[in-house]
Amino acid sequence: MSASIQAPFSQTTTTPLQGHFISFEGTEGVGKTTAIEQLCARLQANGIDYLRTREPGGSPFAERLREILLDPNTAINDDTELLLMFAARCDHMQQVILPALQRGTWVICDRFTDSTVAYQGFGRADGDATVRGKIDTLIEQFVTQLPELTLWLDLPVLEGMARANKRSAADRFEQQATDFFTRVHKGFRTLADEYPKRIQRIDASGSADEVSARIWQKVEEKWDI
Amino acid sequence: MSASIQAPFSQTTTTPLQGHFISFEGTEGVGKTTAIEQLCARLQANGIDYLRTREPGGSPFAERLREILLDPNTAINDDTELLLMFAARCDHMQQVILPALQRGTWVICDRFTDSTVAYQGFGRADGDATVRGKIDTLIEQFVTQLPELTLWLDLPVLEGMARANKRSAADRFEQQATDFFTRVHKGFRTLADEYPKRIQRIDASGSADEVSARIWQKVEEKWDI
Repeated sequence: MSASIQAPFSQTTTTPLQGHFISFEGTEGVGKTTAIEQLCARLQANGIDYLRTREPGGSPFAERLREILLDPNTAINDDTELLLMFAARCDHMQQVILPALQRGTWVICDRFTDSTVAYQGFGRADGDATVRGKIDTLIEQFVTQLPELTLWLDLPVLEGMARANKRSAADRFEQQATDFFTRVHKGFRTLADEYPKRIQRIDASGSADEVSARIWQKVEEKWDI
Repeated sequence: MSASIQAPFSQTTTTPLQGHFISFEGTEGVGKTTAIEQLCARLQANGIDYLRTREPGGSPFAERLREILLDPNTAINDDTELLLMFAARCDHMQQVILPALQRGTWVICDRFTDSTVAYQGFGRADGDATVRGKIDTLIEQFVTQLPELTLWLDLPVLEGMARANKRSAADRFEQQATDFFTRVHKGFRTLADEYPKRIQRIDASGSADEVSARIWQKVEEKWDI
């Protein structure tokens, strides 16, 4: 390593010692993509290294599994889907998330374990205790790092679906009916009650800038940026 | 259903009321394929409907995952591999094994859960308690039907490897070194001690006909054919 002259107020002098792990959650159409973009822009403006990623997927192998999972022609039973989700998650975690956190990069992840509980545990299984038990066991045994902060973007289900339907062709999950998403929403609400410290509810109504400001407030509160 | 005249001694009058589930286990080159063929021939000669299948794989979707698992270019961590194995197994079980057993067909499966314990739990992890715990949890929570009889074809590791090496190009598992297979063998021995009723050790030395006769004796003993 060669020594170099550092400009005293340059952003490059900010060297985070440790990365933080933030996940975004919510039903379809709540504005996750825009909110993530705006959070990343703010992190960059503050000289914080970040990595933006998503689930299912996020690593080359997990993206292969994502294609299978979201393919409308894939006909698999619920247990098989659950195990594939966690196979993808294991690869993503080991290959991408943990190395980033170890080198001091913040990880911003579009969906993580809570989506599995909400979609598979509540959307498909309506909160059934056996299914929830399976998911919790998989999290406990195979997920070595949970997010430190989970931002749950909350919007009435019908409002989110109306936004999502304007956007693009429906994938396998988006084709599900309204009552499915109502159960998913109940899943996120239940999780927010169970983990009040990690999961912060964000009012996702209003303009993108308003939502972004609400999110940044939570991040600043937590890490004193 | 129309009534039909039945020949009193015809094989077709044998209508099994319930299928039985048999798995074959063992390290490479112990002669599983030939032993399975000969068992299937004997079942057929006794008028017993059977389905021959294998793991990983056995259903169209699980065979897709098998290709990924056995591809020498697949670089995934141990947990990811384990979860993919069980995803394949869930699909195989729900799509193929359980429907066959329910319609009274015997299921003869080349490898099942014991191979996961032996290969992943002992071969890769040398019997590590954490890994074994993960596998046992996955079996308990995701495998609804265990074999009633497991035939463990036992041969000294080097003898089996010498046989296997003559056969074909090595896949990802066969490329592993001798000490790997020694650990796998120890895994099968440990399992046979833990489940002395379900797992029957078969001396796999000698001719194919000799091995086949030893296997048939175990099957006849169990179900009084």
